[in-house]
Amino acid sequence: MKVKRSERIAAITKILVEHPNVIFNLDYFSELFMAAKSTLSEDILTIKQTLDSFKLGIIETIPGAGGGVRYRACWENGKISRTLRDISQKLRDPGRVIPGGFIYMTDIIFSPSTAFNIGEIFATKFADKKPDYVITVETKGIPLAMMTARAMNVPLVIIRRDSRVTEGSAVSINYVSGSTGRIQTMSLARRAIRGGARVLIIDDFMKAGGTAKGILNLMGEFGADVVGIGVLVATREPLEKLVKDYLPLLILNSVDINTGTVDIVPNQNL
Amino acid sequence: MKVKRSERIAAITKILVEHPNVIFNLDYFSELFMAAKSTLSEDILTIKQTLDSFKLGIIETIPGAGGGVRYRACWENGKISRTLRDISQKLRDPGRVIPGGFIYMTDIIFSPSTAFNIGEIFATKFADKKPDYVITVETKGIPLAMMTARAMNVPLVIIRRDSRVTEGSAVSINYVSGSTGRIQTMSLARRAIRGGARVLIIDDFMKAGGTAKGILNLMGEFGADVVGIGVLVATREPLEKLVKDYLPLLILNSVDINTGTVDIVPNQNL
Repeated sequence: MKVKRSERIAAITKILVEHPNVIFNLDYFSELFMAAKSTLSEDILTIKQTLDSFKLGIIETIPGAGGGVRYRACWENGKISRTLRDISQKLRDPGRVIPGGFIYMTDIIFSPSTAFNIGEIFATKFADKKPDYVITVETKGIPLAMMTARAMNVPLVIIRRDSRVTEGSAVSINYVSGSTGRIQTMSLARRAIRGGARVLIIDDFMKAGGTAKGILNLMGEFGADVVGIGVLVATREPLEKLVKDYLPLLILNSVDINTGTVDIVPNQNL
Repeated sequence: MKVKRSERIAAITKILVEHPNVIFNLDYFSELFMAAKSTLSEDILTIKQTLDSFKLGIIETIPGAGGGVRYRACWENGKISRTLRDISQKLRDPGRVIPGGFIYMTDIIFSPSTAFNIGEIFATKFADKKPDYVITVETKGIPLAMMTARAMNVPLVIIRRDSRVTEGSAVSINYVSGSTGRIQTMSLARRAIRGGARVLIIDDFMKAGGTAKGILNLMGEFGADVVGIGVLVATREPLEKLVKDYLPLLILNSVDINTGTVDIVPNQNL
């Protein structure tokens, strides 16, 4: 059965897009469609040019043995701004203010489409850091970290607040929560990260940066190198965080519990 | 600028596949490509037939106002079997046995590609249950639950082991862990689920079923209806679980700590 060009293009696009950052050898498609590699190269060029012109992402061709083709998420700045504006708009709803001055945002960050978008934005912003792992601390940052890991095609690592028996020997550290000043514990299974690895920290929220600082220290114990820190929301105050280089997508300027006013805006320095 | 047929097909496939279960109105594509709806209907038919013939998923056309086209993940049984065989093969590695008779599996279930596959398998198996939410208990089940939620395009809900101040008023229940016999707590923010909702429980592991039973009880407090329970691994023993209808993808027959033998197999009754 002969497969038409438009059919090959639909199938190849589906397979590439669904496996971001995975290299597919042309032999794979060649066998699947019983088509010559030169034909497939033309198909892939069409897909590449289409994604380029509609700003839907990047198709890369990797030459040589072990080479092939892969899709990579890459968002243009305009789309990032629009998406972050939409999210901050939702977060400004006065009904989200919780006693204590917190904002209820789990429905937003646990929405698969929003988490997917945030993951692709982080993947775009940290692409050049080439992390080996995306790491987070349980619990609320996990969906965002998972979607970032998926967009970059690297394993997710979850640091626990206590060490669980089902993960074998673990490294634990104590750290001081920057906002509450309380001593807390985080731990990670020994075998979760290999020495010398490059890790990207992703979390939902940063106030003083105590948790991120704790992860930095824990990664030191593993001999791993933190190549980036991305958070969905960082509070403006305190200005001086416990970590230096971090990338917040949104800035929470203030929450007024009495009026329900939430002043949150996209980070203008993305 | 005129957009060619093969280019429209690449772009439409990308957009549909990346947003499973989201209905796109033809007007959207019509504006994007400045093409007639009849032309787009032909393009979509080609995509539909291609995904059909390569068993890559389903394209559905929804008629009427508010109608349009959507992509839905749907795996054939052969691909499900091969994927589960691969995963159980990896889990049989003697190096995974941890003191206490547990198996280290976080690297597998936190791998984005594996979690993606498991999410699509659950989405395939539970498609007819039409859940409004996918729900899990922190922590290890979250990546699988997130990927299932994404494949079905419904919100993820995470039950906490303690109630956090940042989520407002919460409902807590105590339950007895079926395997340890200890009393544990789980809690969920009041606003996380609306009454009358249909929920699908997804978790990584089930032994006696105490956690699933706890979720069932908690959902009762919310007036929500549990329409399915999916777990990646269920132990064969105890045969009588605390919940009746659950779907395990893999069955863990036994773990021999002395020899490092892990007897785990795909569920033959999928």
